[in-house]
Amino acid sequence: MSRQTLEVFEAIAGGVSTASGFRAAGVSAGIKARAGALDLALVVSDLPATAAAVFTTNRAQAAPVVVSRDALARSGGVARAIVVNSGCANACTGDEGVQVARGMAREVARLVGCPAEQVLVASTGVIGVSLDLHKIASALPAALSALMPGNGPLAAQAIMTTDPFPKEAAARVSLDGGDVVIGGMAKGAGMIEPNMATMLGFVTTDAVVPKGLLDRALRDAVNDTFNAITVDGECSTNDCVMMLANGASGTAVTEANYEAFVYGLRAVCLKLALGIVRGGEGATKLVTVNVTGAATVEEARRAAKAIADSPLVKTAIHGGDPNWGRLIAVAGRAGVEFELSRAAVTIGTIALFKDGRPHDEAAPEAAEYLKNDDIVVSVNLGAGSASSTVWTCDLSAEYVRINAEYRT
Amino acid sequence: MSRQTLEVFEAIAGGVSTASGFRAAGVSAGIKARAGALDLALVVSDLPATAAAVFTTNRAQAAPVVVSRDALARSGGVARAIVVNSGCANACTGDEGVQVARGMAREVARLVGCPAEQVLVASTGVIGVSLDLHKIASALPAALSALMPGNGPLAAQAIMTTDPFPKEAAARVSLDGGDVVIGGMAKGAGMIEPNMATMLGFVTTDAVVPKGLLDRALRDAVNDTFNAITVDGECSTNDCVMMLANGASGTAVTEANYEAFVYGLRAVCLKLALGIVRGGEGATKLVTVNVTGAATVEEARRAAKAIADSPLVKTAIHGGDPNWGRLIAVAGRAGVEFELSRAAVTIGTIALFKDGRPHDEAAPEAAEYLKNDDIVVSVNLGAGSASSTVWTCDLSAEYVRINAEYRT
Repeated sequence: MSRQTLEVFEAIAGGVSTASGFRAAGVSAGIKARAGALDLALVVSDLPATAAAVFTTNRAQAAPVVVSRDALARSGGVARAIVVNSGCANACTGDEGVQVARGMAREVARLVGCPAEQVLVASTGVIGVSLDLHKIASALPAALSALMPGNGPLAAQAIMTTDPFPKEAAARVSLDGGDVVIGGMAKGAGMIEPNMATMLGFVTTDAVVPKGLLDRALRDAVNDTFNAITVDGECSTNDCVMMLANGASGTAVTEANYEAFVYGLRAVCLKLALGIVRGGEGATKLVTVNVTGAATVEEARRAAKAIADSPLVKTAIHGGDPNWGRLIAVAGRAGVEFELSRAAVTIGTIALFKDGRPHDEAAPEAAEYLKNDDIVVSVNLGAGSASSTVWTCDLSAEYVRINAEYRT
Repeated sequence: MSRQTLEVFEAIAGGVSTASGFRAAGVSAGIKARAGALDLALVVSDLPATAAAVFTTNRAQAAPVVVSRDALARSGGVARAIVVNSGCANACTGDEGVQVARGMAREVARLVGCPAEQVLVASTGVIGVSLDLHKIASALPAALSALMPGNGPLAAQAIMTTDPFPKEAAARVSLDGGDVVIGGMAKGAGMIEPNMATMLGFVTTDAVVPKGLLDRALRDAVNDTFNAITVDGECSTNDCVMMLANGASGTAVTEANYEAFVYGLRAVCLKLALGIVRGGEGATKLVTVNVTGAATVEEARRAAKAIADSPLVKTAIHGGDPNWGRLIAVAGRAGVEFELSRAAVTIGTIALFKDGRPHDEAAPEAAEYLKNDDIVVSVNLGAGSASSTVWTCDLSAEYVRINAEYRT
């Protein structure tokens, strides 16, 4: 990023309803077992908004994914509202599940006063359990009357399953024509309640963004943020990131200021994504995995992902062990160009392996560094000049306990 | 396998020196920290043997892998001996490491009386630590004088790192011309001592096997056995399976009896491979993952591997949770053809998901079944008729403890 771009961006407090013309609510619909638990979130734009979404690549797509994808196609990328429930993923629920997801959109559309295809739907929670449309329909009027610009925090809570904390982020970006606000909320990997981690992200902006630019901006931002994190390498049936741009600021995103807008959008998405990693099951450390010296960016990403998903690397970091051999061995098996004699491993700023030789004299210093909560590990593949960054968390016995003891 | 093939195969007690004309030894060279621990294995064929090997695909290849691959090329696939040390992987040790591995081969060649390129070398243990050639050279004369057909069990112990038990297997196979014996030993995934799981397998036979057929037979057998197991998805810098065929039985493997020979070889390799999985770190259950209904065999294997490596699936099985949703979700993200409406999940013989619908009424019975030590899970992808099987173990908190607490 150039210095100029940095000057036009400012992180601000806020979330999914901080941009002008958005309101949010979080209420209890009785889907979660605990009485009164927030489990239904509603986000409404006062104006029809340009809408974009990125959906899970999992072939076992949950009903809300099927319905929202279809809605975007039918509306031509216009939406007024997003409705999200937690406590039940509405996945692997057959045709009935699709009917329930459609029913959710229909009810919101009726209350908001828009076509059903202008409502996007998302669910997170247990797989293979039917979602009770009646409970949701009964709670929606209360959600509608609770809609406020200040209720983003409640919406962020209502989409949580076992996330240890809600995740919100917002930024103000100065474009040539004026300021716009981008805000969002996300939920991450908490798998006691669901059978599967589901990652959901919702981003709103008051910028005027043409559909083509919005699609491109969301993909560009998600690629380096939500798609660059991993807790355990899984990809759920329900994952999605949805974005609405309602134009309430009157300031337009154009090819000329696109970079500045995406910079702000990326910052919001990155804060949300890192929140998901920090809140990963049993996680005690946020781990930044930098891969440099790759033949291509794709290979850098593949190697970084392999390292970030390696149980041997994640357990070593959990145990505070500066075990550079595991990093080299994973890089070597990642299916990318790799030249051992030019490879290097750096933990923090401490070189433990360089030019094909160990530097174990630095191990005690590296072990001390690994006591931090935020860890950076860097691997140079010795094969080129491309690089990529992926974020993950450590692997603890608590992760196993959480995921083994569910339903037992 | 046809009934005819089954009749010509008999599992027998034995290991790497059970076939005629092979002798083995396991001695202490002082490489492992514990005084007197067996850490040097020697396998010698009385006759020059046809040799084949399958090496790790990891690009950070350890010195013994480099040296053994080179030896096979230079000898044209002939070997008299295999020397293996445990306690030090001689990996990431630069040019000096290669010199040490060459020195091991040279010392064995001198004692046995053969060219250095007729000696194969393997190492397993800590990565990035120099291997002391002097210790090995000093212990080799004792190993040479200990060589006996009955010392296979000592050799199998000497290649262990933290494997909980030694792994040996043998079989007698009736070919048209007479009986041949196939035997072997292996070491698996024990990562306290090494920085990385290393899988080593050594197989011997007294059959007469032309080089081309031996290469093919070893690849065919390894593909369905050693390459179809996974403990944690890792692939080490040192993995290899080596095979010697010394012809001492006088009975030849030909195209006509090839299937019977490979059947016996596969059975020996499978017993060794399943021993590795059973002895996986923290493992309490052996899990057979069957994938059926795939578009191709490659896709069946890929899906089975994804399921077998999934921490969510492995923790669920560890916890005795018949969590079919996780199996469906992993199959859906495995990058293979998958049709949810025709997919099925069966645990043991209990169908939990079929034709796109859950059968959770069977969950209590499935939970009871999961208390067994040997678990079979089957996933039908609903996309075709190809199938594949992969074996793995469950993921326990003990795995994390072992791998986090190393060196701390």
